[in-house]
Amino acid sequence: MTRGFYIGRFQPYHQGHHRVVEAIAEEVDELVVGIGSADQSHSVRNPFTGGERIMMITKALVDIDLVTYAVPIEDINRNAVWVSHVQSMSPNFDVAYSNNPLVVRLFQEAGIEVRGSPMFDREVLRGTEIRERMIAGEDWEDLVPEPVEDVIREVDGIERIRQISDTDIDSPND
Amino acid sequence: MTRGFYIGRFQPYHQGHHRVVEAIAEEVDELVVGIGSADQSHSVRNPFTGGERIMMITKALVDIDLVTYAVPIEDINRNAVWVSHVQSMSPNFDVAYSNNPLVVRLFQEAGIEVRGSPMFDREVLRGTEIRERMIAGEDWEDLVPEPVEDVIREVDGIERIRQISDTDIDSPND
Amino acid sequence: MTRGFYIGRFQPYHQGHHRVVEAIAEEVDELVVGIGSADQSHSVRNPFTGGERIMMITKALVDIDLVTYAVPIEDINRNAVWVSHVQSMSPNFDVAYSNNPLVVRLFQEAGIEVRGSPMFDREVLRGTEIRERMIAGEDWEDLVPEPVEDVIREVDGIERIRQISDTDIDSPND
Amino acid sequence: MTRGFYIGRFQPYHQGHHRVVEAIAEEVDELVVGIGSADQSHSVRNPFTGGERIMMITKALVDIDLVTYAVPIEDINRNAVWVSHVQSMSPNFDVAYSNNPLVVRLFQEAGIEVRGSPMFDREVLRGTEIRERMIAGEDWEDLVPEPVEDVIREVDGIERIRQISDTDIDSPND
Amino acid sequence: MTRGFYIGRFQPYHQGHHRVVEAIAEEVDELVVGIGSADQSHSVRNPFTGGERIMMITKALVDIDLVTYAVPIEDINRNAVWVSHVQSMSPNFDVAYSNNPLVVRLFQEAGIEVRGSPMFDREVLRGTEIRERMIAGEDWEDLVPEPVEDVIREVDGIERIRQISDTDIDSPND
Amino acid sequence: MTRGFYIGRFQPYHQGHHRVVEAIAEEVDELVVGIGSADQSHSVRNPFTGGERIMMITKALVDIDLVTYAVPIEDINRNAVWVSHVQSMSPNFDVAYSNNPLVVRLFQEAGIEVRGSPMFDREVLRGTEIRERMIAGEDWEDLVPEPVEDVIREVDGIERIRQISDTDIDSPND
Repeated sequence: MTRGFYIGRFQPYHQGHHRVVEAIAEEVDELVVGIGSADQSHSVRNPFTGGERIMMITKALVDIDLVTYAVPIEDINRNAVWVSHVQSMSPNFDVAYSNNPLVVRLFQEAGIEVRGSPMFDREVLRGTEIRERMIAGEDWEDLVPEPVEDVIREVDGIERIRQISDTDIDSPND
Repeated sequence: MTRGFYIGRFQPYHQGHHRVVEAIAEEVDELVVGIGSADQSHSVRNPFTGGERIMMITKALVDIDLVTYAVPIEDINRNAVWVSHVQSMSPNFDVAYSNNPLVVRLFQEAGIEVRGSPMFDREVLRGTEIRERMIAGEDWEDLVPEPVEDVIREVDGIERIRQISDTDIDSPND
Repeated sequence: MTRGFYIGRFQPYHQGHHRVVEAIAEEVDELVVGIGSADQSHSVRNPFTGGERIMMITKALVDIDLVTYAVPIEDINRNAVWVSHVQSMSPNFDVAYSNNPLVVRLFQEAGIEVRGSPMFDREVLRGTEIRERMIAGEDWEDLVPEPVEDVIREVDGIERIRQISDTDIDSPND
Repeated sequence: MTRGFYIGRFQPYHQGHHRVVEAIAEEVDELVVGIGSADQSHSVRNPFTGGERIMMITKALVDIDLVTYAVPIEDINRNAVWVSHVQSMSPNFDVAYSNNPLVVRLFQEAGIEVRGSPMFDREVLRGTEIRERMIAGEDWEDLVPEPVEDVIREVDGIERIRQISDTDIDSPND
Repeated sequence: MTRGFYIGRFQPYHQGHHRVVEAIAEEVDELVVGIGSADQSHSVRNPFTGGERIMMITKALVDIDLVTYAVPIEDINRNAVWVSHVQSMSPNFDVAYSNNPLVVRLFQEAGIEVRGSPMFDREVLRGTEIRERMIAGEDWEDLVPEPVEDVIREVDGIERIRQISDTDIDSPND
Repeated sequence: MTRGFYIGRFQPYHQGHHRVVEAIAEEVDELVVGIGSADQSHSVRNPFTGGERIMMITKALVDIDLVTYAVPIEDINRNAVWVSHVQSMSPNFDVAYSNNPLVVRLFQEAGIEVRGSPMFDREVLRGTEIRERMIAGEDWEDLVPEPVEDVIREVDGIERIRQISDTDIDSPND
């Protein structure tokens, strides 16, 4: 039995993430999807709460033929203990998937196997691009799995991101 | 669609918890199982990590006819913001299940419906009782769902709890 | 101009505290009332929030002939920086009033003048005594200034402390 | 009885803030002035401590015909629990005043009424403008209420902000 | 080259600790002395600051024929990341010395070699015993290396521990 | 006896720092070298852990004729309590050496003597310059004491900083 670990912020979970999961599904028996910065929300960069992202991922993965776990990972702000933090919050895993050089380095120093995650259509399938489209009132729906669109509508996500993008503030006292 | 929220520390997830989930399953369409003190582990009171408890619950619920989410909730140590913390980490829920008077009070003050969770065989089906049996070398296996026993064996849990119970220390510097 | 500093948890603010303030008023021109453990609430030991305690104190002091400031002080859990923390959150003060030996020591090591605060009827005028009476359904109203009773009623404080005292839990996961 | 809540960082409290308070005074019976980022100080952006800002506000409001509370609010760095944090530290309030889009959104999601606060002479009456004048040695005194000028002089504030602006450092290790 | 790691709270560093270091010196080339709960002080259980304990240890070890490092380790309150925390704050080490069952377990789970540290005269050479003697006004000087006695005198340590032991409070708001 | 305190981040400890220490050695009997942001590592700005920096400094100072202490100081992110934090983690000191205007200000407000530290060849002997050379594959070895070069090689530091500089991310979720 091989269990993989795939981390991202998933703001929101989009088609690019989804294709990565489908590709990883060829290689592992179970997959933990780690939701990074789970404690951050209501900012342009992190508009959705950890709980909202759990819903997006769980619903998007319902028909995929793979045992998956959606696990929120709060920020710990100390790179040297980050791998231990992740390991304590996640079911045990054998291999981590990431293209983030810092994540790759931290897992490597901890002696954990890391594989690059495939990339799909990185020009468009990026969280930044999708969030900018939401703010600008452009089409974004095709860039995310349908259940993700439902979650975003249910939590009034478009109005939220537009409202908080009025200025470039990220905290209540900015 | 009704979604329920059921919180506990699940150290470990046992037959008493499992029967509660089965009873709640009669009343809701989806259930979030919130894993409290998810950041605590390796103590007599909290021997298992958040990740280990996610595994216990996910595997124990695999055959239950209910959409479930196992969501780790780190301690925040401020009762007045605890409900907001839980809400931000969990998929939205309509009703909370708890018999803990503080949890009941906090949800009530926040205007959230709370229902008492049924209790089953509280003399034996308690985390404390099960952990004491583990330490004493007595039978505990029948008190937990079979997949939970597997997880505990896989992570060498019996040896861990016995070793750390040698003294009543709970932190490395006690 | 002399400004004093008087710290307590004020759970609740009672006649004993009030007489201390009246006595201090003879010695200083302005008084800062520091509300300790301001971030703690909804426990038997700390039933009321920082904001509720600000209301109690501000309303109880409305007719006293002294400029007063009610300042919440969150716990910092490191004794060695506690005085600096207090100083940064409070208007400057010249003398601190306390009978707590640790507080006295910390202020002394920081070179701040400390005076013992007078004590009044310590058998009855203690937070513990008043909270126990609230839980037991006994008379407590005469032990607090009238505006404090109003605040406690307004926030449904008696029902809160009774409910959370059902067990000796202090956190949602106990 | 209506109680309002008005939040800002008040670095420093200036004539623009003061006119807002005067305008709100027409609409409410009591006003809580929430001092945001109360734990931050000694930086160009947040030169004054929470305690110094309490003094500025309390003294500036002494002659205003309104019951006011100056309440320091420490940063909590999690937008999703920020409203609960504010509520626990403040006397209860019925309406919040803010023009900050994030604050407006957070209060709205929590079901709290928000009103825009009026703006006065925003070109000049801004904290940034006043702090820059302090650093540059230009006139700033007319932009703040007189008691605020006194507090700033008493704490040697001009010299402090000039000294720490020598470089753009904000922490001791930058 | 072998480097060892020996952790304790050292409240204060006493003859028992010193003999352990002398014994370890036979086995390693360099030794890191980790000062646990370095952020705690001014309580009966942790009377001395991290800095005061660095001085005790450094001065006591000046004549020992071993390269030593005295490294303060702040509490992190999450057992699962404690080993990573220690490793990031300490020079690399090959073997850890401890008799604390939790410390032993945590290092073992992280794959680090642990050796029991020898014990000397545990009836008397215990921090608790020494602190009780200090409070009671009994002889304690012979139980610590001479430079440790000097440090305790220099920081007025006896008066401090006596004063804060007047009650069993451990925080300014107890 | 005079003890000095010299703080920096020492990322890495270089010849400029070393000459400062040599100059301070003329003025004091003992020197505490405070390692700032000790909890930060694995970023372009803070590539080395607190423990790695302790090693660099201890080994570089082995032949200097001065009692020195290398003390890691974790960030506390509140300028108003930073001096107390430093004092609690460090052996007592009489004079602080710094050219950082914020550090100078904070020590001055706390009534501690501060002396400017001499500067040597600031064009080249800067952490930023040295880290950029490491990333670019240029010569950096001559800019640090030889034992520092050894430590950096031992911990595979060049490869680490190159790898994490691939992008400008500083946290695992960027």
